[in-house]
Amino acid sequence: MPDLTTVPARKGKAAILASSQKLRLVNTYGQQVVDTWAFNRADMAEFMSTEHSHAALLKILPTTGDTMVSNRRRPILTFLEDTSGGIHDTLIAACDARRYEMLGVAGHHDSCADNLRAALAELGLAPPEIPAPLNMFMNIPVGAGGSVSFEPSIAGPGSHVTLRAEMDLVVVFSACPQDIVPINGADCTPKDVHFEIFGSP
Amino acid sequence: MPDLTTVPARKGKAAILASSQKLRLVNTYGQQVVDTWAFNRADMAEFMSTEHSHAALLKILPTTGDTMVSNRRRPILTFLEDTSGGIHDTLIAACDARRYEMLGVAGHHDSCADNLRAALAELGLAPPEIPAPLNMFMNIPVGAGGSVSFEPSIAGPGSHVTLRAEMDLVVVFSACPQDIVPINGADCTPKDVHFEIFGSP
Repeated sequence: MPDLTTVPARKGKAAILASSQKLRLVNTYGQQVVDTWAFNRADMAEFMSTEHSHAALLKILPTTGDTMVSNRRRPILTFLEDTSGGIHDTLIAACDARRYEMLGVAGHHDSCADNLRAALAELGLAPPEIPAPLNMFMNIPVGAGGSVSFEPSIAGPGSHVTLRAEMDLVVVFSACPQDIVPINGADCTPKDVHFEIFGSP
Repeated sequence: MPDLTTVPARKGKAAILASSQKLRLVNTYGQQVVDTWAFNRADMAEFMSTEHSHAALLKILPTTGDTMVSNRRRPILTFLEDTSGGIHDTLIAACDARRYEMLGVAGHHDSCADNLRAALAELGLAPPEIPAPLNMFMNIPVGAGGSVSFEPSIAGPGSHVTLRAEMDLVVVFSACPQDIVPINGADCTPKDVHFEIFGSP
């Protein structure tokens, strides 16, 4: 079993994944939302797209067996396994500095948008834009009449998703620093998550 | 009453809207989906964002009284009136050449993504990216378990939405050329729609 890489609470981490390699993302302590992006390593203008995936999958809740597609409608990331309960969000923008300002935070607050930029910068890369993320483990139920609400994640400690790269990828995870709205559990305390890459390219 | 501008079936049209001006978009013959974008005229890198609006509105079905926000979480476009039944889509990507290729179309097919580019080009402008559109009048119900389906629009002939610009805008409409999936009615025949701009800046 390969070593686990830590995505520190409130921070982001990027990883290179060759086509057909697999990645296991573990919700180590439970209920931690992980904003997730995937970019074509050869051309970062192609990336995982929630709005294109909705049309491809005919669903807004991807889980085991589902393949997310890119903004060019090509397969990009497949859910091979999901022990988290299958509740992930594909509707809500990544949090950013402005989001926390509007929630009343004064001064700096980490955000998933900043984490995306910082994690890619560690590899000498920059995002072409801030794509709508696949918010892994995030619980945003859609009610009658189209209402949405921000609810605590249902992902248990140690639950995980296993993903397969459908092309050479740069994947970015952000352990969401949201500590005001209780998406990361009622204690509003972001926590580390971990991942491992395995399988031959 | 000002003159009506035509958005020809299968094509796009851009319009300049000063802050606080209003626009009435009429579904002239009924059931026609109109992909809609709004860009900050002073900086087109700011544009209407469905994923940011979901978080701001706490709903996926905007209608009378709701203000869409930009990717910088600022008010951008408000629904002042909606006589169409209030069913608009904020989940599905604009159709593009690849979408029609995957639906079995050989050769050229108009698309909303191409219409966005062409309509802006008429004004000497180019989109910074293809944002997820506000698909006006598009009927994409979300079922139990998060399923989505492509259903005929419920917007009646002559029904309309009235929108107010919350900043100086370039707005783009595309009378969606979809003629395979029955979103534009069971006859799968895209039709003209019309709009008028009114009110002082």
